Amino acid sequence: MQLIDGKAVANQLKLEIAAEVELLVKNGGKRPHLAAILVGHDGGSETYVAAKVKACEVCGFTSTLIRLDIDGSEHDLLEQVDRLNKDEDVDGFIVQLPLPKHISEQKVIEAIDFSKDVDGFHPVNVGRMSIGLPCFVSATPSGILDLLKYYQIETQGKKCVVLGRSNIVGKPMAALMMQKAYPGNATVTVCHSRSTDIKEECKKADIIIAALGQPNFVTADMVKEGAVVIDVGTTRLPSTRTKSGFKLTGDVLFEEVAPKCSYITPVPGGVGPMTIVSLMKNTLLAGKKAIYNN
Amino acid sequence: MQLIDGKAVANQLKLEIAAEVELLVKNGGKRPHLAAILVGHDGGSETYVAAKVKACEVCGFTSTLIRLDIDGSEHDLLEQVDRLNKDEDVDGFIVQLPLPKHISEQKVIEAIDFSKDVDGFHPVNVGRMSIGLPCFVSATPSGILDLLKYYQIETQGKKCVVLGRSNIVGKPMAALMMQKAYPGNATVTVCHSRSTDIKEECKKADIIIAALGQPNFVTADMVKEGAVVIDVGTTRLPSTRTKSGFKLTGDVLFEEVAPKCSYITPVPGGVGPMTIVSLMKNTLLAGKKAIYNN
Repeated sequence: MQLIDGKAVANQLKLEIAAEVELLVKNGGKRPHLAAILVGHDGGSETYVAAKVKACEVCGFTSTLIRLDIDGSEHDLLEQVDRLNKDEDVDGFIVQLPLPKHISEQKVIEAIDFSKDVDGFHPVNVGRMSIGLPCFVSATPSGILDLLKYYQIETQGKKCVVLGRSNIVGKPMAALMMQKAYPGNATVTVCHSRSTDIKEECKKADIIIAALGQPNFVTADMVKEGAVVIDVGTTRLPSTRTKSGFKLTGDVLFEEVAPKCSYITPVPGGVGPMTIVSLMKNTLLAGKKAIYNN
Repeated sequence: MQLIDGKAVANQLKLEIAAEVELLVKNGGKRPHLAAILVGHDGGSETYVAAKVKACEVCGFTSTLIRLDIDGSEHDLLEQVDRLNKDEDVDGFIVQLPLPKHISEQKVIEAIDFSKDVDGFHPVNVGRMSIGLPCFVSATPSGILDLLKYYQIETQGKKCVVLGRSNIVGKPMAALMMQKAYPGNATVTVCHSRSTDIKEECKKADIIIAALGQPNFVTADMVKEGAVVIDVGTTRLPSTRTKSGFKLTGDVLFEEVAPKCSYITPVPGGVGPMTIVSLMKNTLLAGKKAIYNN
């Protein structure tokens, strides 16, 4: 069993990005600039945004954090989005999700200029990804592809089971794993809450990508010997053993599944760090205007 | 075994559309207007476009057919697209594919105003469909959903195998069958040219949607007793038995597969007529500005 060290791969990729940025700046180019809008003070969101700001520092990006009050209106948020759309110094920006219930996430996502949508959530980027055109690929699926690449894991003709059909992970992951490319060319099955045969599908899978958000859902009896298991789950379960009072828990019951795997990602330290690196990669692409010219 | 009569369903849906259009016009509304651009004189394309024009008549739509020379430049075609984008009388339009090789299909598709893209091929419509937002759903997958609905075929929790990963059928079909809706909520597997286990996947399938474009690919040994089989294939094979000199041939070896099925579509007369009706439905939606307001 080989543990997939997302943290180490992420650190290496960040160094590569940093080196490219220094070269870019040295040659008179502009330092990439990522902005983030954070509404309220949700614990998870604070952690993610702080990690993104820190990653920007490591990569040599300019970063801007805009904080909005949890009670602020949708209109206020849309105004900030509009301002960032027009700000020529900002290459890409994100609105940290989830948003408070009185704000429509979809409306906000669609208000973002797709050429600055480094989260890859805008319909134009989602559509272009599905078709196979250059676009900002959403961060978590993109990070998983990078892990598969880094560990040279074969995907062509393999049976890949994606657990979960979220717009942010499950659906784009399925689209990417079936594309004519490496990683890709897999036979892809998407299972979800209404699937009746998840166990049977998983038992046949060469690659399982678990993104249900159900702690410890994937057990050893669902995994075949030699499978590759990618765990996207990051549920915060209460814990008395950690300083923070919670423990990040994946969708895979690691202790019993790991011994059967050829490769497996831990939680934390697997997919998580890669997600942030993918956001950095998209920001670099935005800074270089490598996807869209406007 | 129940034969799915796409022609009959299509005719009924066209009558329903026609009734709605007459009511619309009676109430002072505008008659929906579909335009089509046809480049050259490809036999298949001529047939399809003629069928679309005829369907417009039945539905009470205005239709316009614009013919361009096979040697015309990409620039000429893009000019026509731009003209139709701006023509306020035209509610929706299509560029009949395939295009001659010197013209980029993708460039042309992206040049179409997505709010008039009744084929549903523009990235905005593809992305919105994947996310689950109102959009123009591409015609063939949409027609298949209508057939499943018409025959009240259960899809929730069923294993649905989609053969083929084209942008026009396979990928959107998979996205639709996994969506939280009826028809949908299926466990979806996409197989394609690089899949090594197509037969095994098909044997487990409750629903097979064959869109590989490989005549008679699906044989009886690949289909389980009681399965629903939807055949999207329409390969033109030479034939001495028909006046036209060819025979439309599906991806399913109908004679041997049909007896095992609970439902099956014939070729011709199955999915084909529904595809055109879906285009009519999208045009009606465009005419009513039911999806986009601009």
